Amino acid sequence: MGKKLDEFQANRLEMNEKLIGSNNINIKRFFALDERAYADGALSHKTKELLGLSASLVSRCDDCITYHLLQCHEAGVTKEEFLETLNIGLIVGGSVVIPHARRAIAVLDELDEDAAAEASSEEA
Amino acid sequence: MGKKLDEFQANRLEMNEKLIGSNNINIKRFFALDERAYADGALSHKTKELLGLSASLVSRCDDCITYHLLQCHEAGVTKEEFLETLNIGLIVGGSVVIPHARRAIAVLDELDEDAAAEASSEEA
Amino acid sequence: MGKKLDEFQANRLEMNEKLIGSNNINIKRFFALDERAYADGALSHKTKELLGLSASLVSRCDDCITYHLLQCHEAGVTKEEFLETLNIGLIVGGSVVIPHARRAIAVLDELDEDAAAEASSEEA
Amino acid sequence: MGKKLDEFQANRLEMNEKLIGSNNINIKRFFALDERAYADGALSHKTKELLGLSASLVSRCDDCITYHLLQCHEAGVTKEEFLETLNIGLIVGGSVVIPHARRAIAVLDELDEDAAAEASSEEA
Amino acid sequence: MGKKLDEFQANRLEMNEKLIGSNNINIKRFFALDERAYADGALSHKTKELLGLSASLVSRCDDCITYHLLQCHEAGVTKEEFLETLNIGLIVGGSVVIPHARRAIAVLDELDEDAAAEASSEEA
Amino acid sequence: MGKKLDEFQANRLEMNEKLIGSNNINIKRFFALDERAYADGALSHKTKELLGLSASLVSRCDDCITYHLLQCHEAGVTKEEFLETLNIGLIVGGSVVIPHARRAIAVLDELDEDAAAEASSEEA
Repeated sequence: MGKKLDEFQANRLEMNEKLIGSNNINIKRFFALDERAYADGALSHKTKELLGLSASLVSRCDDCITYHLLQCHEAGVTKEEFLETLNIGLIVGGSVVIPHARRAIAVLDELDEDAAAEASSEEA
Repeated sequence: MGKKLDEFQANRLEMNEKLIGSNNINIKRFFALDERAYADGALSHKTKELLGLSASLVSRCDDCITYHLLQCHEAGVTKEEFLETLNIGLIVGGSVVIPHARRAIAVLDELDEDAAAEASSEEA
Repeated sequence: MGKKLDEFQANRLEMNEKLIGSNNINIKRFFALDERAYADGALSHKTKELLGLSASLVSRCDDCITYHLLQCHEAGVTKEEFLETLNIGLIVGGSVVIPHARRAIAVLDELDEDAAAEASSEEA
Repeated sequence: MGKKLDEFQANRLEMNEKLIGSNNINIKRFFALDERAYADGALSHKTKELLGLSASLVSRCDDCITYHLLQCHEAGVTKEEFLETLNIGLIVGGSVVIPHARRAIAVLDELDEDAAAEASSEEA
Repeated sequence: MGKKLDEFQANRLEMNEKLIGSNNINIKRFFALDERAYADGALSHKTKELLGLSASLVSRCDDCITYHLLQCHEAGVTKEEFLETLNIGLIVGGSVVIPHARRAIAVLDELDEDAAAEASSEEA
Repeated sequence: MGKKLDEFQANRLEMNEKLIGSNNINIKRFFALDERAYADGALSHKTKELLGLSASLVSRCDDCITYHLLQCHEAGVTKEEFLETLNIGLIVGGSVVIPHARRAIAVLDELDEDAAAEASSEEA
């Protein structure tokens, strides 16, 4: 992953750890439920991550969008599929979603650069 | 469709007609874009309707939820798939989504009753 | 006003009275500030009511929309101006604003019927 | 409870039952977590219900507001305390909270009438 | 424009370009509709930008607010008119709008400094 | 206070001053009402600050959350009470509140470090 995404993930994990590790058992349970919601079931993990992305776009939550972009990417979501999901986010949530779509594109660009860097290092 | 859903659809179509038929061309274009967003593409129509449902749940828009439930139903979404989508709506949007999940269940019940009525009339 | 709008206004005034008349002085002050926000100033009362309508549309608050539609109507806002404001509401707030736009059209229809009824009774 | 509140509670329980009783274990777990969040702990049950009311007011969720009003009432919240919480809801969430505050007042009125009816029947 | 606003505009245009230039025609159409919504019509461009600002304030979208502040400024909106619009944003959207109003004031300050710098360079 | 919190407070006060000191009397009145909402009354100042925190969490307003965390801290809210309030925020507002809960934990950590630094300097 690119530097910005690396930092995002490191900070996200560190602070989640503190929330989950606090002596409030209900917060820990909430995080467990959150993770389970995206597991393979009647709907595939990939579809569920797209549902999370769509919900995050209209909720206009940048960190949630970044997280689901990474999860979707790992699940094999293609550029065209990302763009169609962004479009649904724009239609359902309106132009206030545009700034978040701009930042989503920046995340996708960083993922593309990672892939390009890996490919060129493999070639060498 | 059951009586409540019939009324919902009739009112929805009548008022949309007035908005689309008004002499504001941009409103008409917005409705056209809205419809196109859910057409088959890189993602299937079914998946896109689920994305619309997920976005509507966390936006807590009852009419939008009802509309996407009907579209999903027509696209063959099963009870298990509906419940997993409702669960993602609850996790992402929190307990304020519960009242909308209750009304979503009532819509699904009405769709089940329709199916049962049709099946029994076909048997006769 | 038509029957539905009459009932809306009567209920609105009765319950506001209870809130304002309660022994919580800060609630009373909030209502006073709310009213003052739309008074003629550097911007006209009409423009300010349109600003209130635009804000209410994207906040998806039906009662607020109905209230500002009535205020705008009284301030002389035309059908074309209403439609352009609805369009901005749809663009900024997305398709989740559509159900509220449908209900806004129903309010405008009721206001038109009132005007038609008055005109025909004056002719007689 | 008055008739409207009785119907609210009956419908609420019936539909919650369907959600909890569905074969989606995660939905059931979410409801369990939701209930636990308001149990006595470092903060009292009463304070937590007030926190739920405050969060529901700014989320502009009528059913959530009604539910927490009932829970608060049972926990002994007084009229003055309700009004101060409504005021915080108005200040934090703005005038779009007013319609919900009007409906909250109607619920409190219904609870007062219940209390008055009970008191007079006990006297008899 | 000041340095921060210059960077905002440059980044905004670059990322919009990527969204519009992607091979998703519906996203391109959405941007076109977004632009058309603020064109002169029954309501003036200036009034429509104020409507966009009001909607952006209660939607608490900093980038949208900055964009409409710049558009309004270019359309000749005065300091008094800005403050009255901010006040409507605060009343309708509540104290959660305050942080965005603080950032809006910083943008207006930067625009004032630009004007002052230009005026003094013209004098020289 | 730690450096980040010091900067937050300094910027907050500077920009509030500009808003309050502008020649728009209604904005000044709104700030006055905002402050009064949290004064001791039927509910204690501490409880009201917790209500403000709960409302800010589900509104997902980082600056509002930071402000109420500081106010709560000063009013003697303990770590356990903070965690129970964060949990209510997560349950009511869903996983989109998680990023804000992460940042809330970082603020609480900074407050703890301040306390530790003070304690060790007193010992010396």
